[in-house]
Amino acid sequence: MSRIYLDHNATAPLRAQAREAMIAAMEVTGNPSSVHAEGRAAKAIIERARADIAEAAGAASADIVFVSGATEASALALEGRGLDGAAIEHDAVAAWVSDALPVDAEGRVTVADPGRSVLQLANSETGVIQDLPSGLACSDITQGFGRVPFAFDWSGLDMAILSAHKFGGPKGVGALILRRGTDLAARIRGGGQEMGRRAGTENVIGIAGMAAAARAAQRDLEDGVWDRVETLRDMMERAVESAASDLIFAGRGAARLPNTSCFAARGWKGETQVMAMDLAGIAISAGSACSSGKVRASRVLTAMGYDSDVAQSAIRVSLGVETTEDQVLRFAQAWGSAYRKMRARAA
Amino acid sequence: MSRIYLDHNATAPLRAQAREAMIAAMEVTGNPSSVHAEGRAAKAIIERARADIAEAAGAASADIVFVSGATEASALALEGRGLDGAAIEHDAVAAWVSDALPVDAEGRVTVADPGRSVLQLANSETGVIQDLPSGLACSDITQGFGRVPFAFDWSGLDMAILSAHKFGGPKGVGALILRRGTDLAARIRGGGQEMGRRAGTENVIGIAGMAAAARAAQRDLEDGVWDRVETLRDMMERAVESAASDLIFAGRGAARLPNTSCFAARGWKGETQVMAMDLAGIAISAGSACSSGKVRASRVLTAMGYDSDVAQSAIRVSLGVETTEDQVLRFAQAWGSAYRKMRARAA
Repeated sequence: MSRIYLDHNATAPLRAQAREAMIAAMEVTGNPSSVHAEGRAAKAIIERARADIAEAAGAASADIVFVSGATEASALALEGRGLDGAAIEHDAVAAWVSDALPVDAEGRVTVADPGRSVLQLANSETGVIQDLPSGLACSDITQGFGRVPFAFDWSGLDMAILSAHKFGGPKGVGALILRRGTDLAARIRGGGQEMGRRAGTENVIGIAGMAAAARAAQRDLEDGVWDRVETLRDMMERAVESAASDLIFAGRGAARLPNTSCFAARGWKGETQVMAMDLAGIAISAGSACSSGKVRASRVLTAMGYDSDVAQSAIRVSLGVETTEDQVLRFAQAWGSAYRKMRARAA
Repeated sequence: MSRIYLDHNATAPLRAQAREAMIAAMEVTGNPSSVHAEGRAAKAIIERARADIAEAAGAASADIVFVSGATEASALALEGRGLDGAAIEHDAVAAWVSDALPVDAEGRVTVADPGRSVLQLANSETGVIQDLPSGLACSDITQGFGRVPFAFDWSGLDMAILSAHKFGGPKGVGALILRRGTDLAARIRGGGQEMGRRAGTENVIGIAGMAAAARAAQRDLEDGVWDRVETLRDMMERAVESAASDLIFAGRGAARLPNTSCFAARGWKGETQVMAMDLAGIAISAGSACSSGKVRASRVLTAMGYDSDVAQSAIRVSLGVETTEDQVLRFAQAWGSAYRKMRARAA
């Protein structure tokens, strides 16, 4: 039986459109900084991609700075600014901001001073969507982009952090979106690329893939494909709930991404569940993937007020556009079965 | 007539082996930090690539930190160390070091205090190869790797900077090679990747391509393919020299890369030559490609003691493993013809 991938918030499969665009870009030899025809052809790929991503992100009047991913975008955007954030931010953002902003029990953050604050569009673990106040200094839109409507120009943001591989682009490429005129000091220097804000020969193939994926993701969103995914997510939640009446669903009372579910079975470590499901042929996760597999309580759930038992017992199930009803039902069945065994052992 | 690409020091065509490895890696969905089977498969690609690159670079006992290219590797290696360099270093290195080290007329650099100094393996504009003193803090090996024999473990280096796209890997990926135990502070933070030295989800597809290209480049080097390229380069130099007896060849008296030629026709701007050759269907460059097409005198030639007229009149012709005799002869003919027209106009 083929495996079931329900870890799209860690990374999504490469979209067919991204694959094609990358293979096409492999044929273009030039260095985008070279002035000859080969260089101009490479430059044209980047500038077309920049326009496509700007359009998909509703950022026509913004600047797009290509970087190696959301982690680099976070460092570029946030280092040295002394901004405030909440404890539910991704590690890549948390590395550069305070954790002063208050978080409620459903994972919603209150921002007092938008111009000095950072707030994610959606949470990677719970899927909780934030209401971004106008004038916010920066938002990590990585988990929300392509899954919920978003337009940079309407958001009132100064900066937005974006990664390609969550919406079907390749890993290792992303962008910082900047309201035109926003000050930015290059961290990687020694070349005039990206208007002096990010030196280094551009990841032409990756950028081409990111743009193709952004266009496809935007079309999917407009076509309403996430409504179907949301129905499957809700179906899955009812199924696991009927198997385990003591489940705690984090952020279920708030607006959430259509694809994400985070739930905890008290006393059953998240990592144990992940391993059990992996053996059953299903990929899910315990918390964010980006912290190199360390076993620890979810910082997000802790910030929402859950005790460490719950925060260590949570798993994240995140669906994608290609997820089927059969897959979520097979997951619910496998998880329910493992749950019953666990409770039987504990009894 | 198909175009002739003689700008391999700006970037080389993607090798077939890199292309295949990248397309294969596109099928692997997982995030390398995820613990499930999909994540482990992605992690395995990276770790296999790391071992392959270590072997190709003669760095079995070193650490390889994957980054987005030589420019990021330079920043990661050099920021805050206050090291000395020469004025012939690439902009990406020059951004972080002094230009105190003396350069002779053939482009050779003298290092007094290796432990506090940086020195490139080979120059991007002239191809001049440096004798790296033992105990050197860092070397940018980007232009030399795969073209001349090099083994990190034998070099006595603490750090080496490497980019994939000069030896047939994709643009936007590179590595910092570190003697095990060398201190390094992460600049891009917020994740445990690369043993805490470079956070962010890895460019899995690019890394796979880099490793395949490194293996292929190493095999080519062992097979002696650059001897043929050197013969073509020398043939080209004799041909343009016979067309223009007043040519100045920079660094020709020193050991040079087998593929690189840098020469100046006094009073004929390098940019003008590049555009004339581009119209004739041939890609060459004036100086380093990485400074976004700015018209200016070569910093490298100025450091070698040439006056600004010569430094503004230099072009770089850089061959690759796929370059043919027909191509270099067609270049020499086109260049000679343009040269005669230029001199006729000037007369």
